[in-house]
Amino acid sequence: MDARLTLTEKEIPTKWYSVMPDLPFALPPLTSPRTGYALSPVELGDLFPEAIVEQELNNRSREFSIPDEVQEIYKMWRPTPLNRARRFEEILETPARIFFKYEGVSPAGGHELNTAVAQAYYCKEQGVRRMSTGTGAGEWGIALALACKFFGLECRVYMARSSYDMRPYGRTMMELCGATVFPSPSRETVTGRKFLEKEPDSPGSLGLAISEAIEDARMYEDTKYSIGTVLNHVLLHQTIIGLEAKRQIEKANTYPDIIIGCVGGGSNFAGLAMPFLRDRFGGRKIRFRAAEPSSVPTLTKGRYTYDYADAEGLTPMFKMHTLGHGFVPPEIQAGSMRYHGMSPLVSALYEQKVIEAVAYPQLSALESAVQFLNCEGILAGPESAYAIKAVVDEALECRATGAKKTILFALASHGYFDLSTYDAFLAGRLKDHLYSEEEVERALAALPEAFSGQ
Amino acid sequence: MDARLTLTEKEIPTKWYSVMPDLPFALPPLTSPRTGYALSPVELGDLFPEAIVEQELNNRSREFSIPDEVQEIYKMWRPTPLNRARRFEEILETPARIFFKYEGVSPAGGHELNTAVAQAYYCKEQGVRRMSTGTGAGEWGIALALACKFFGLECRVYMARSSYDMRPYGRTMMELCGATVFPSPSRETVTGRKFLEKEPDSPGSLGLAISEAIEDARMYEDTKYSIGTVLNHVLLHQTIIGLEAKRQIEKANTYPDIIIGCVGGGSNFAGLAMPFLRDRFGGRKIRFRAAEPSSVPTLTKGRYTYDYADAEGLTPMFKMHTLGHGFVPPEIQAGSMRYHGMSPLVSALYEQKVIEAVAYPQLSALESAVQFLNCEGILAGPESAYAIKAVVDEALECRATGAKKTILFALASHGYFDLSTYDAFLAGRLKDHLYSEEEVERALAALPEAFSGQ
Repeated sequence: MDARLTLTEKEIPTKWYSVMPDLPFALPPLTSPRTGYALSPVELGDLFPEAIVEQELNNRSREFSIPDEVQEIYKMWRPTPLNRARRFEEILETPARIFFKYEGVSPAGGHELNTAVAQAYYCKEQGVRRMSTGTGAGEWGIALALACKFFGLECRVYMARSSYDMRPYGRTMMELCGATVFPSPSRETVTGRKFLEKEPDSPGSLGLAISEAIEDARMYEDTKYSIGTVLNHVLLHQTIIGLEAKRQIEKANTYPDIIIGCVGGGSNFAGLAMPFLRDRFGGRKIRFRAAEPSSVPTLTKGRYTYDYADAEGLTPMFKMHTLGHGFVPPEIQAGSMRYHGMSPLVSALYEQKVIEAVAYPQLSALESAVQFLNCEGILAGPESAYAIKAVVDEALECRATGAKKTILFALASHGYFDLSTYDAFLAGRLKDHLYSEEEVERALAALPEAFSGQ
Repeated sequence: MDARLTLTEKEIPTKWYSVMPDLPFALPPLTSPRTGYALSPVELGDLFPEAIVEQELNNRSREFSIPDEVQEIYKMWRPTPLNRARRFEEILETPARIFFKYEGVSPAGGHELNTAVAQAYYCKEQGVRRMSTGTGAGEWGIALALACKFFGLECRVYMARSSYDMRPYGRTMMELCGATVFPSPSRETVTGRKFLEKEPDSPGSLGLAISEAIEDARMYEDTKYSIGTVLNHVLLHQTIIGLEAKRQIEKANTYPDIIIGCVGGGSNFAGLAMPFLRDRFGGRKIRFRAAEPSSVPTLTKGRYTYDYADAEGLTPMFKMHTLGHGFVPPEIQAGSMRYHGMSPLVSALYEQKVIEAVAYPQLSALESAVQFLNCEGILAGPESAYAIKAVVDEALECRATGAKKTILFALASHGYFDLSTYDAFLAGRLKDHLYSEEEVERALAALPEAFSGQ
C-alpha cells in the first residue's frame, strides 16, 4: 500500500454531498430576529448570492453539482493527499492505524479555499463585483482573497486589529492577492466608527470584524458578504474533503472506526465527517469526535440555543452551541477557534449524541503537534493541534486495550502562517487559559428572550 | 491531460543520476589549499561520512542507488507535482506551454530536504551522532534539522545573526525539529569568538556561519559537517527532481524546449537539469537557463577560478564562478542567494556554454512572483522568483515570435517562511541593489595566488 493515497483527476468528486436529507432529526431553521420566523430566501439574499441562498436553505437535496469552473480551480491542488502516519504510530507504540487527510497543500494553506472558490464563483456568476468578509487569524481572509483574484472580484477584508498588528503576514498574503485589508474596528462602517469613538485603541474581535463586513455588504449594491464556516453551504462545500477521503481509504481496503477533527466553527470537521455520517445513519458502526480548546469550550460547555453569529447582532439567529455572542474569548493564539458559536449542524449532531466532543488545554495540544511534526514532518496549524491531541489519546487507548482501530483525522491546515504561536510556545510564553463560567453566564444572560431556547 | 502530473509510488526513481560520466569535458577537481593537489578522500572524510565522500569524488558512476531508508522518507512527500501553469500562460497571452516542478510540498518547504535526508542517513549509518551546518535564511537549516530528527541525530545550526534576529521563524522551525541554533558569530568556536572580539555586534554572514560549522565538526569526533548546495553529492541527491520530472513530462507527451531554474549555489537548478543534460549530450536540442540576482551576479559577473566555499578559508578549494570569498553580498533579502560562489559543475557548464545565465534585479523578480501567485495560487520563495521572471521573458518572446515552446521550470520552494520579504516589497521598502565592481575586484584580488586560475 502506498504511504500516500492519491486519486486521479477523474476520481475527484464532481458533486458535493449534503447530509441533510439523511438526518434522522430535523435541524432547527435559521430565524429572523426581526420576525421571529424562519428566515426567508429574500432576507438571506441580502447577504449572499442566490445559489448560496439555495444551498443554505435547501435541506431536501442530497447532491449539489460542483460547477465546472470551480472543479477546474480545485484541480490546482486537489485531490489532497490522504496519508498514513506510520512514524507517528510507531512512536505512540499503538496497534491503531492512523490516517490523515491533509488540506494544508491548498494554495491558501488550508481547507478554507474549498468554500472560498465556490462562493466567489457564485458571486461572479450573479454579476457581483466585490466581496466582503471578516477574518480572525487571517487564514480565511487569505482564502477569500485568492478566490476573488481567481474570478476577478474585489475583496474587502476586515481583520481584528490585534491580529492585524501582531500577525502581519496574514495581511501580507491577502494584500499580495490584491485584497484590501482593514484593521477592525475601522472607519469604513458605522459600527466600526462607533467602537472607535468609545475606544480608539480597541483590539477588535472576530465577531466585530464580521459585523463590519456585513454592514459593508449591505452598504454597497455590488457587494456580497462571505463567511468561512458555521453555515450549511460552507459545510456543504467542505464535503469534498470527506468524499475524496472515502474513496482514498477504500483504496487502502479499510474503513475508519473513528473520525477526528478540530472544531472552531465546525466546517473542516463536518466536511470530513458528513459522507461517513451517511453510512452511520445507514447502520454502519463509526464514531465521530470533535476536539476544541478548553478556553473556548463551545460544544462541551456552551448552551444549545438561538444566538447571533456576530458581535453586534446583525446576522440571522442560529440554533447552536454558543458561549453567547457577547463572549470575548481569551487570547489563546489559535485564532480561528476564538469564536463564541458553532455550526448549527455540528451542534445538533452533538445534541443528538451522534458525535462526541472533547476539550483540551492548548499547551497539551501544541505539544502533540510538535510530536507529530517530528514524526511526519508536517507542522499543523494550531487549530488542528487539538485534533492531533485527540488522536494521541485514542491511539494510547488502543495501546492499552490492544484494539487495532483505524483512526482518520482531518489535518485542516499547515502552521506556517502561525509560527509566532509556536515561537511563543517554545519560549514558554503561552499559558493554559480556562474559560470563565461567570463570563459565559453573563454573555448567555444577554441573549434576546424570545430566542433563549429555554 | 491532468493539470497535475503525478506518479505512483512505484514510479519514484530508486537511483540518483550523475551526469559526470556523460560530460564532454573534464571537471576540475576539488583541491587542498595545503598541498595544492586534488583533494584526497581522507582529507574530505574529515568533514563528511564515507558514502558522501565517495559520491563527491566518484565521477565514473552514472547511477547511485537511493538507500531504502531514504526512499521510505522520500515517500512522505514525493513524488512532487509537476503542474501546468495554464492561468499563467493565459495572462501572459503566450503560445508557450509552461510546466513547473514544485518542491515546495516538502515538509521543509523546499528542495533542500532531498539531500538533507540522504546526508543524515549516511551519517547515521556510520555511527555519527551529531551534524553541524551553516544556514543563511534558514531554509537549509530547517531541512537538516528535520532530517536529523528523522534519524535520531543531534543537529547544530549556525545561522547568520542578522537572519537569526530578523527572521525568527526559520529559527522557530529548526527548534521545533529539535535543532540547537546559534547566532553566528557565536561563542562556540574559535572563529566565532575572534569575530565577536573584533565586532561584538557583528551581523555575521552565511560564509562565516559555514566556517563556524566546519570548525564545530572538526572539534568533535562524533560530528560531521553538512552543506546544502554547491558540492557534487548535493547536486546528485537533487537529481530526484529531474528524474521524476522527466517521467512526468513524458506522460504529457511533450518534452521541454527550455529548462529554467534559479541559482544560488546551483543545486535545485542542476537537480532538475541533469537528467535532461544527458539527452543534450546525446544530441537532443534543449536549452538550459539559470537565473540569478543582479546584486549577486556570480555566474554572469564572477570569475571562473579556484576559491574557498566559506568566508574564513577552512574548506577545500573549488574551481567555480566566484565573486571572491571575502565578498559581502548586499542585503537583498532573498537570503540563500547571498553567496559568493557557485557549484563547480554549474560553473563549468556555463563556461562551456552548455547553459545560459541571466541576472535580474530583485524588484522585477518579485513582481513576477506576485503575478504567478495571482494565477497559480502559489507564493514562490524569493529565490525562485528569479526563475519565474526568466519564464516570463521566455514566454513573452514566444508571444512575439509565435513559437509554441514547452518551458519547464523549477519552483524550488514556497515563500511562506519569507513573508517578511514580500511584506517589505509591498510596502516599497525594498530597493534594487547593484553589485559593486570595485568590491568584487577587491575580493578577487585577495584570492591565494597559487589558485588564481590565471
